[in-house]
Parts: sequence; structure tokens; C-alpha cells
Amino acid sequence: MKKAVILLSGGLDSTTTLYYARAKGYKCFCVIFDYGQKHKKEIRAAVKIANLMGNDFKIVKIRLPWSKSALTDSMTKIPGNRRAERMSKDIPVTYVPARNTIFLSFAASYAESIGASRIFIGANALDYSGYPDCRPNFIKAYEKMINLGTKGGVEGKRLKIETPLINMTKAQIIRLGTKLGVPYGITWSCYSGGKYPCGVCDSCRLREKGFAELL
Amino acid sequence: MKKAVILLSGGLDSTTTLYYARAKGYKCFCVIFDYGQKHKKEIRAAVKIANLMGNDFKIVKIRLPWSKSALTDSMTKIPGNRRAERMSKDIPVTYVPARNTIFLSFAASYAESIGASRIFIGANALDYSGYPDCRPNFIKAYEKMINLGTKGGVEGKRLKIETPLINMTKAQIIRLGTKLGVPYGITWSCYSGGKYPCGVCDSCRLREKGFAELL
Repeated sequence: MKKAVILLSGGLDSTTTLYYARAKGYKCFCVIFDYGQKHKKEIRAAVKIANLMGNDFKIVKIRLPWSKSALTDSMTKIPGNRRAERMSKDIPVTYVPARNTIFLSFAASYAESIGASRIFIGANALDYSGYPDCRPNFIKAYEKMINLGTKGGVEGKRLKIETPLINMTKAQIIRLGTKLGVPYGITWSCYSGGKYPCGVCDSCRLREKGFAELL
Repeated sequence: MKKAVILLSGGLDSTTTLYYARAKGYKCFCVIFDYGQKHKKEIRAAVKIANLMGNDFKIVKIRLPWSKSALTDSMTKIPGNRRAERMSKDIPVTYVPARNTIFLSFAASYAESIGASRIFIGANALDYSGYPDCRPNFIKAYEKMINLGTKGGVEGKRLKIETPLINMTKAQIIRLGTKLGVPYGITWSCYSGGKYPCGVCDSCRLREKGFAELL
């Protein structure tokens, strides 16, 4: 069975990506990051989701002592009530410097160690167009770099980075996931770290909008 | 004063690189990795070296639960007495999957957070030609990727990766470092984790050969 490493956050996109990779016939090895995010609930959600179908997983704990992102810094407030149109223009305060670069580097290390030929990441260029590291040209450049910088790549066992959701709307993602049997009830999207979703952060709003569009 | 992030291991190459960056007029911010290496002494050496001239530094602790490298896995022996000529052909068992990719991703995150325009890494393509992630084409591809994947890069504040030692022999590195006042006595190169350098691992042999060539 072909092996794939999946970046699993426990949110809607990465969970859909995991189910997509399984449906494509990959044996899935999930990497779950504890990067000091306020929304610890997503880590518990990710573990639950990985376990659900008996997927292998590793939790990788990292700390960025220099990060002032609203996702990790207790002094910076997660913004709510921003107009949805503004989200696509600016780089949000929830941006964590080079986060996907760091995540993908661990995924590449894992992939090389287990001989996986694929990394799946639920990056999305529509909803998160403000994040430079969710764009197709970044992913392409990453793939080129990693094949020059790893033993496997140099020996001709190329590693490919798959981004099945990159050009989908949230509603399209949910439609795909529903067909694949994604248990959306146990995914977690909210950035705020509360007991219940706040309903006003970017992530909550995008999630709600996605489900609303399907009605 | 221009800022630079320096990947500092506490070894001969990275310490020379730090002194080189200082000589070029950069205010240096060092990143020191605790990645579970057996040779913990190099971390203590790195901290001592960073402190010596009052450089800022951060220690980043990471674990790769999947790594079977001889540098981190207690079951795999660090090889000694290999013929030096063989080192340049094979990928050594001391190779840690995607190590420089991971190290550089943290450096890029740090650089973006403090507004640094340079990352200095003591990668060397001659002595470590067996490591794919020490080669110039990898560094170039990394730089391209990171400028597509970070806020700074996207906004036109390009990040450059400097590899001043990449084409130097060990003897040339030591000659340069001696001119710059590098305190080689407190650097640490041995892979084996003993109290004194083992003298037979690749790193010890390269170090000794470098000093010997200067006589």
C-alpha cells in the first residue's frame, strides 16, 4: 500500500484531506502539531480523528519563542467581526511566520523516514489568500526544494505535495468531505480556545459560511 | 544595524560563520537546536559561543520521533574509521532526514519575526557532499521557496540565505576563522557524545585533517 504523510490539524480542511487521501488508496501517517496554539481543542480533535480509522499519527511539539501571532501569543487578541472581504487582502494577525514551511519540513522528514511518496496538506488559496504559505506557487517551490534536499529526492524517489483543496470553496470542501464520510461533528475550527466555538473569528466564520452555502 | 539569523551548532563551521557575519556588520541572532543529538556538548558550546560576544540567541527544542539517524538514535552506532574517500560518495548514517530543511524553516520564522534580511548557515558542500541538504542548488531552491512563503518575501523584503563556507576546505575555513578571532578551543565537533572527542567519527576526522593541513 502506498504511504502518505498527512498534515492533520483537526480542522475541517485537513480532516477532509485525510479522508481524500484514504479514498485515493494511501496508508495515512498523520502529523499533528502542538505549536502552542490557544485552541488546544483542535489537537484533541486531531487525535480523535486519526484514531477513528486506525491511522498512524505522531504529535510533534514545537515552540516559536519569537512568534507574536494572535494564534499563539496571549497578548494578541484573535480578531472577530472583520468584514469577510477584508480577509482576502491583508495578511491576518493570525499569521504564524513560516508556519507551513515548518510543518512541511517535519512532514518531509517523516515521509523520508517511512518511505512515503506523498505529503497531503489541506492548504486553501481561496479562504486563506492572505497567507503566503497557502498559495500554489509556494507549494510548487517547496516541492522542488525538498526533492533537492533529501536523500530520497536525490536518489530519484520523488516526494510530491498534494493539495486537493487548494482551489475549492469551503462549500465545495464540505460537499466532497460529506461524500467521503468525514465526521465534521468532531472537527474543530475555532481559533479562540474557548469551550465552544466563538462564532466570530475568521475560522468560525468561514466554517459557518461553508455550511450555510450548502443549504 | 542590519540583522541576521545564524544557525549555530557550536561546531567549527557554524562558529566561523557567526564570526564572519559579525565581521560583515550584522547584528546576529543565533538559533541553537536541541534535536536530541547524542553530542549534547555542542549545545553547551553553542550557548557559550553565543554569549561570548553578547549575541542574542534562542534554543529551539525539537524531536523527530521517526529519525533513525546515528546522531540521535541510541541503537545506531556512530561510524568510526571509515575511509575518508568513502565519505564523499554515500549518504552517511549520520544523516538526519530533512535536518537543514527543518533548521532553516525555524530560522526563516525567526528572521521574519525580527525583520532580519539574512540567514547564515555554515553548510559545506565539500566535506559534506554526502548530505543533499548541504548543496548549493538546495540552498538556492530554499531561498526561492521561503520568499514565496513568508509575509516579508511577498511584501518585497527578500530574505537571503548566505553560505560563506560552502565551497571551502576545512583548512580554508580554519584559516578564515583564525583571522576573525574564532575561539576554536571552545567549539565542539565530535558526534559521539563522549566527554572527550572520539577522534574517529567523520566530524572529528574532518576537524583534525583541517588543522593538520595548516601546519
